[in-house]
Amino acid sequence: MSETFFETHRQTLERAIEATRTREFWSPYPEMPSGKIYGENAAAAGEEAFKARLNRPFSLELPGADGTAGSETSPFGFELGISYPRANVDKLTEAMQTSLPAWRDAGPDVRAGVCLEILHRLNQRSFELAHAVMHTAGQAFMMAFQAGGTHAQDRGLEAVAYAYEAMTRTPEHTRWVKPQGKRDPLEMDKGFHVIPRGLALMIGVSTFPTWNGYPGLFASLATGNPVIVKPHPHTILPLAITVEVCQGVLREAGFDPWLVSLVTDTREQPVTKELALHPAVRVIDYTGSSEFGEWLERNCHQAQVYTEKSGVNSVVIDSTDNLKAMTQNLAFSLSLYSGQMCTSPQNIFVPREGIETDQGHLTFDQVAEALASGVSKFLSDNDRANAVLGAIQAPETAERIEEARSLGRVVLDSETRQHPDFPQARIRTPLMLSVDAARDEQVYQRELFGPISLVIAADSTEDGIRRATVLAQEKGAITWSLYSTSEAVQARMEQAALEAGVSLSINLLGGVFVNQTAAFSDYHATGANPAANSCLCDAAFVANRFRVVQTRRHAA
Amino acid sequence: MSETFFETHRQTLERAIEATRTREFWSPYPEMPSGKIYGENAAAAGEEAFKARLNRPFSLELPGADGTAGSETSPFGFELGISYPRANVDKLTEAMQTSLPAWRDAGPDVRAGVCLEILHRLNQRSFELAHAVMHTAGQAFMMAFQAGGTHAQDRGLEAVAYAYEAMTRTPEHTRWVKPQGKRDPLEMDKGFHVIPRGLALMIGVSTFPTWNGYPGLFASLATGNPVIVKPHPHTILPLAITVEVCQGVLREAGFDPWLVSLVTDTREQPVTKELALHPAVRVIDYTGSSEFGEWLERNCHQAQVYTEKSGVNSVVIDSTDNLKAMTQNLAFSLSLYSGQMCTSPQNIFVPREGIETDQGHLTFDQVAEALASGVSKFLSDNDRANAVLGAIQAPETAERIEEARSLGRVVLDSETRQHPDFPQARIRTPLMLSVDAARDEQVYQRELFGPISLVIAADSTEDGIRRATVLAQEKGAITWSLYSTSEAVQARMEQAALEAGVSLSINLLGGVFVNQTAAFSDYHATGANPAANSCLCDAAFVANRFRVVQTRRHAA
Repeated sequence: MSETFFETHRQTLERAIEATRTREFWSPYPEMPSGKIYGENAAAAGEEAFKARLNRPFSLELPGADGTAGSETSPFGFELGISYPRANVDKLTEAMQTSLPAWRDAGPDVRAGVCLEILHRLNQRSFELAHAVMHTAGQAFMMAFQAGGTHAQDRGLEAVAYAYEAMTRTPEHTRWVKPQGKRDPLEMDKGFHVIPRGLALMIGVSTFPTWNGYPGLFASLATGNPVIVKPHPHTILPLAITVEVCQGVLREAGFDPWLVSLVTDTREQPVTKELALHPAVRVIDYTGSSEFGEWLERNCHQAQVYTEKSGVNSVVIDSTDNLKAMTQNLAFSLSLYSGQMCTSPQNIFVPREGIETDQGHLTFDQVAEALASGVSKFLSDNDRANAVLGAIQAPETAERIEEARSLGRVVLDSETRQHPDFPQARIRTPLMLSVDAARDEQVYQRELFGPISLVIAADSTEDGIRRATVLAQEKGAITWSLYSTSEAVQARMEQAALEAGVSLSINLLGGVFVNQTAAFSDYHATGANPAANSCLCDAAFVANRFRVVQTRRHAA
Repeated sequence: MSETFFETHRQTLERAIEATRTREFWSPYPEMPSGKIYGENAAAAGEEAFKARLNRPFSLELPGADGTAGSETSPFGFELGISYPRANVDKLTEAMQTSLPAWRDAGPDVRAGVCLEILHRLNQRSFELAHAVMHTAGQAFMMAFQAGGTHAQDRGLEAVAYAYEAMTRTPEHTRWVKPQGKRDPLEMDKGFHVIPRGLALMIGVSTFPTWNGYPGLFASLATGNPVIVKPHPHTILPLAITVEVCQGVLREAGFDPWLVSLVTDTREQPVTKELALHPAVRVIDYTGSSEFGEWLERNCHQAQVYTEKSGVNSVVIDSTDNLKAMTQNLAFSLSLYSGQMCTSPQNIFVPREGIETDQGHLTFDQVAEALASGVSKFLSDNDRANAVLGAIQAPETAERIEEARSLGRVVLDSETRQHPDFPQARIRTPLMLSVDAARDEQVYQRELFGPISLVIAADSTEDGIRRATVLAQEKGAITWSLYSTSEAVQARMEQAALEAGVSLSINLLGGVFVNQTAAFSDYHATGANPAANSCLCDAAFVANRFRVVQTRRHAA
């Protein structure tokens, strides 16, 4: 069975490896929630499957299960009512360690086959997963289907591709023949065996449980590390379904299903630190606050720690030859998932003297007004607004909007919107403030997570670039965006991006947005500034999750 | 010039990459110190060059040089009398950071070309380097030529090969075209730029300054990180010559020579901690004591830290069909460089009931006697002894031999030997003790660095394997060796090696020794137990020394 999985998916794996090398467009998981692709009944069946989860226990195969946890509330306004098994950490880790050697010795092909079958089955359940992501993370349905479903599957496959290539770079056996002049050569038979680090821990984030979680989960699993999935207590369901699918495939392939296990906790009785410091845990993947990410980096010496933390993303507007398309593009980026993305722009640096555009010179205030008006127009249709904004995941984020109003001059106020299907949904439109680069450093030099952006009056384009650079170096940044018609300014900003270690998008006008990255082609984060110590996905993300043990003997 | 270097050495680089993939025998740097290969005058010229270094200042181009340091003494018994420039750390790091962008933007080809030219010139100076290694580390000349010269060059090239492959895995540019159904596709031009982490620090070890130092030095340099070379205060010269060669090639290629800089210190005024915590230092390579290695791993949060620390290496003797060859092989391994290798065997587990051999059953005591007698015979010729033993690098190691005598029953006592050319040389033959596995755990569960080995009476072969496993997991180990005619025992030990994360050599009888590894084929350490957090050399050793910054814009 496990060999069959590899043969079934071998071409997909090879194509995925090729895509990570060419970085051309490719995806095996169609991003359109279309009946023609997924089956005419897929949408209805997925919604039914989600609803059938509600208000009952969620069953998984977990050694040492002990009690239940779970109190998820949909940001769209209802209790999920699902109770998940809790685990005794010591009993669970002991069982997982006992199951490790069989998974280790199955080898790269079998493990990759199992991972690809899991991803295939997750893809088939994209509608169910979309509802699960929507009603935990608060993403609008389309985004939940894509970012929570197919794009997350892409990122998972990307990690398997890197892992497989890395593990198979070294042959399993070789004959080493060293000439000895006139004497017989020295001949040795050598064997190379990939071993995992140990147990892996994937700590899920509340907003992108699958998209940010799958790379670490699949990179660890493919390289032989049994994985403990520890979701955010507010966003358990998407990862619980994921673990269920993992366990089903592992069981079919003849392995212990708890090689992928779920550990839940509550805000009152958190278990993450205990897990992260457990001596058996040797790999940790984390997405979330900088504070906890830095704690992991500084304290979990027994483990390889991969973190994505917070940062402050900047846009520099120098000039444009298409004001309308620029404001439309930024309006979408500022509205998407109500700015709750680690890639959402926050700081928009504009020269105090204004900018040149295809509609003539605009003063600083006119630029701010054009940006605000772009967002207003884009969200004027309430259906479109609901399809893009989603809901505010955490009540704290909604509160942050209220508090932020006093931080600058309001150029666009945040509104509460109604969702036609979910009257209790927590929906807010973006707040946009105008501040001064020199006077308001305290305001813009921190992350204001959520739909809050700042139009910042800088002395010049160069001043804006310089401030964005220092900010990225000191506080981190995952995305930068530049609008400029000047090649010199573009080159200057590219140079600054190298200094700051930030990905840069230049003059985005059409259907590509600064806060979206495409697996196999775009890197997510760089690992070169405080926003993240690694990136999704590259060779460094997988290479240290396994080691190679060598044996050698004289050739027979 | 810099492009020329790449073209000159391109084939060597490609061949090196291929060798790391096939792991077959290959080396571009001939290991025989032969006049036919290196030129009839090379040996004499190298010795002259070494002697010309003595008793004078060593000149390097170092911004912010301030005072001098250096008080090296040859383990063969004379003062080197060389004074090296000392550096003001802040001034030096500032200058190196200023020089970084040009090196970064030169790209992988140019950097690889410079690295290969450096290695080529180091190879041409192998005789001079051999004398420098001999009279700082204490290696005998042949070993200093090989381990200190050509094999170190191999390991440096191996690191460049991995680094080059990793950096060029991602294209510099790509066109990304995403279909949009009936609409025009989205087309983006993407650029990918390799950036270094920052400054790199290579902390040299007293015994193998070049062999253990070159991998980190060249991996960092090839990936764009300027490198601070910080030698052990007793073993400066080999690395000072290396830096001199690096600076010469960098200068010729049009770069600032201080992209590779030497920082020296003294035992009284150490500078390593200051360097290791410096915010500009983002990569650290270290070989040395576990204590300082763990301090680096736990405190240098701003840097990627690669360590090779100490461990306790085990041999398990279960049975043999060639007692004579086994004892000869082990005699060489125990004698080579007086056991001052991180790969030297220390603990030799033998079943208490004795073993089966081609010469019949041997009791435990007879096995210990055979091993002791093998060493005695091997070293009975004083010239051969001197050619293998080298000198004791540190006085503390000679003292340790004296102290160790009381730890068990002496089965072979350590002798002081005379060197015909260096009457003051610190030369000691191996001490071998017999101890009990259960009673003497405190004795053998720690590293006894130097020519000290323990023949340990275990309850059984299985008992020996189990004890070696726990020891490797808790204290670390770099090499294991097994002698057994039983396939079942071999398989059991291979399984234990996977659990312990240790490289295993089985039934070594001929010209391959457990303490030697061949670049491009054998991994040195695994990174999977406390003896090291990384290995020489694999993709993980290079992948996180650089990051990739991406830019994207709509296709023209």
